[in-house]
Amino acid sequence: MMFFSILTISDRSFSGIRPDLSGPALFQYITERGHNVLCASIVPDDLNKIHDVLLEWCDTGENDIILTTGGTGFAPRDVTPEATLSVIEKNAPGLPELMRLESLKKTPHAALSRSVAGIRKQTLIINLPGSPRAAVENLEILFPLLEHAVELIKNDPSSEAHH
Amino acid sequence: MMFFSILTISDRSFSGIRPDLSGPALFQYITERGHNVLCASIVPDDLNKIHDVLLEWCDTGENDIILTTGGTGFAPRDVTPEATLSVIEKNAPGLPELMRLESLKKTPHAALSRSVAGIRKQTLIINLPGSPRAAVENLEILFPLLEHAVELIKNDPSSEAHH
Amino acid sequence: MMFFSILTISDRSFSGIRPDLSGPALFQYITERGHNVLCASIVPDDLNKIHDVLLEWCDTGENDIILTTGGTGFAPRDVTPEATLSVIEKNAPGLPELMRLESLKKTPHAALSRSVAGIRKQTLIINLPGSPRAAVENLEILFPLLEHAVELIKNDPSSEAHH
Repeated sequence: MMFFSILTISDRSFSGIRPDLSGPALFQYITERGHNVLCASIVPDDLNKIHDVLLEWCDTGENDIILTTGGTGFAPRDVTPEATLSVIEKNAPGLPELMRLESLKKTPHAALSRSVAGIRKQTLIINLPGSPRAAVENLEILFPLLEHAVELIKNDPSSEAHH
Repeated sequence: MMFFSILTISDRSFSGIRPDLSGPALFQYITERGHNVLCASIVPDDLNKIHDVLLEWCDTGENDIILTTGGTGFAPRDVTPEATLSVIEKNAPGLPELMRLESLKKTPHAALSRSVAGIRKQTLIINLPGSPRAAVENLEILFPLLEHAVELIKNDPSSEAHH
Repeated sequence: MMFFSILTISDRSFSGIRPDLSGPALFQYITERGHNVLCASIVPDDLNKIHDVLLEWCDTGENDIILTTGGTGFAPRDVTPEATLSVIEKNAPGLPELMRLESLKKTPHAALSRSVAGIRKQTLIINLPGSPRAAVENLEILFPLLEHAVELIKNDPSSEAHH
């Protein structure tokens, strides 16, 4: 069983102009598979605010995985990857590469995702797209890898030989 | 209609030893599709000179897209990616990933491209290879994405939901 | 003929708890193809120690390619990519992208590789996985590119037009 937190990043959802559908969609996907969501929150597209929440959630030591949704595109306010890079200690480029590779089979626009993934302490942060459907589809791509990733981060020595 | 500028980066073309064929080939590709080329220039493989032109062209606010051609390989003088990284505020790794992925179908040497793409202010910079044929082929790979990318950079709010 | 050095990165192999099978497997692959191994060494998963060996081996000017094996995963002690990034002057993202792309055809866990490749002075550093089999399989993916890569790093002017 893994422990997730979900951070929705959207000016409009934060200010109440648009309901956050991505956070709940991710919540449902995770809990239906028997995993836990520890925390879910909404912040605006503000680098410092995103940075602060990511830092806090990593430093509790309770989250295996933080999923962000939103702010990974080309718009001026999209700064989720930059906030994530400011927090992670180790980059995990294979995860966004795989998300883009698989998503490209559905839409060439997948190449415009600037998603980042990486590790801070014992927590893996993964940037997912902002739309509910794309967020879930991208999580689905990575899901079969996540239990093993979390085991490795927690340093299960039996896994050392494979990487 | 998009506004492009083209920067040819080559010691030999700058010094007149070899004619610049890539710049004109890109010019033709862009203008034939009804878009504008605002500026085209040739600089040597010098990090500071590349940096200065990229900065100037981004900071006018007039260029939607700057295409560079040349200097993305493994030779000691190849510093175009480093110059680009020194200028961009946001990395867009999905674009070079897609160029390499598609180019690998033609030649394994595509993996030696160190191309970078990213955004500074309202301008998208894309590193293309140095040969005229590869430069155009790589532009062709990305071209269907560029109008949407430019709209997002200019913050068309109707696009927010998709990324 | 290319000149390689091989750096095995593993706490357990360094301390003698587990024999290093990856270093010898890479050694055999390289020498069977008529290339030279200048140096082979084992260090623990310690960023500074990895950094120091990479630096020393690049700065002799004798190594065309340094292969590392181990330390590229998600475990807390895995810091090979970070040590490599601290040494290289130029990133070559197309090489790890190609390794992950090809390895994904065998196992989705390939997406968990955080491998980096890049150039310092005249030496190309490539991070390979830690298991003997995966290390050799990943080297095999890149091997057809390496002679050309080394020629470019040594600045064979006849290659300029292609990149």
